[in-house]
Amino acid sequence: MARPRSFDEGKVLRAARDQFWSIGYAAARVDDIAAATGLGKGSLYGAFGDKRQLFLRTFDDHCAALVAAVGQQLDGPDAGALERLRAHVMAVADSTAADVSRRGCLLAKGTAELAEQDPAVAATARRTFAGIEELLTSCIAGAQRAGDIKQDENPARLAGLVLAVLRGIEALGKGGSSPDSLRAIAETALAVLPRP
Amino acid sequence: MARPRSFDEGKVLRAARDQFWSIGYAAARVDDIAAATGLGKGSLYGAFGDKRQLFLRTFDDHCAALVAAVGQQLDGPDAGALERLRAHVMAVADSTAADVSRRGCLLAKGTAELAEQDPAVAATARRTFAGIEELLTSCIAGAQRAGDIKQDENPARLAGLVLAVLRGIEALGKGGSSPDSLRAIAETALAVLPRP
Repeated sequence: MARPRSFDEGKVLRAARDQFWSIGYAAARVDDIAAATGLGKGSLYGAFGDKRQLFLRTFDDHCAALVAAVGQQLDGPDAGALERLRAHVMAVADSTAADVSRRGCLLAKGTAELAEQDPAVAATARRTFAGIEELLTSCIAGAQRAGDIKQDENPARLAGLVLAVLRGIEALGKGGSSPDSLRAIAETALAVLPRP
Repeated sequence: MARPRSFDEGKVLRAARDQFWSIGYAAARVDDIAAATGLGKGSLYGAFGDKRQLFLRTFDDHCAALVAAVGQQLDGPDAGALERLRAHVMAVADSTAADVSRRGCLLAKGTAELAEQDPAVAATARRTFAGIEELLTSCIAGAQRAGDIKQDENPARLAGLVLAVLRGIEALGKGGSSPDSLRAIAETALAVLPRP
């Protein structure tokens, strides 16, 4: 019996993800992905299934890591919650602005290309947006308890607004809006959050 | 000399646009576009050039029509400007929510798929976003003159925020956010605009 070829799964998945990320799902060719990962096409199929399964795996991993990273930025004590929210919103604007190749966000890109046709992509996108919104809601509720955001506002509604602004910054950055205008949007969004 | 085949250009372009819109640029096949338009592949190439040129034509037309439609909703006298802004923002949320097939917005979809690789797509996206932002700025400045939005706020900055929210609503709708949550985002965005 042939011994299964050993490989670094994380490295292969990152290489596959980068192919999908750069040129999109439909345009990505399994041959190119295999070449980028250093695996033969057969080993790639054997380990991860077909092109769609490979995409779903990289998309799910990427989205889970995204939610975890947002949690790391937002979670913490009530005191400082508004500062953490501010830092997160500005970081999204800055990283979007710094993405000079305009590769954009894989979550946005995968959703735009595939959510309509593929229920699994749509479900992952929905779960990811919901996860980020929940983290934003907790952070805003913390800022309200700390007296930094007006207490009678509904934190989930403010979180929904902030999430839309973050996704909008990403969409506008992809369309080539200037770094200054992306930062201005982030600052304006933070400025209009109702203060006590 | 063969007489050029006559056809309804607008109808052909709409059929081509719908193919790109539904499945994206990379996945759309010229054979299918030709079949949908009722033209032979040769006539299609003869009239509109290659697949990329056909896409750019439909994308440009769509974006120009989008800016014109937004102008029709927003332009008008200062009195009523805030109401027109409100109606526009709610209309975007409603139409996104009503898009049950989640086809989404061709501007967002084309930009997400192609802006990185194709400077012509990026330029059209940038021009379209800038056109909508200018219309929002005029409308907000009108609402300020009418005393409905706080006068010492920078109308261009508020317009940038509203544009980001609109693009965010589109992105979240594509990801499957519920109609109620899309409407809540629109309402919250309107509610936080600084009043006199």
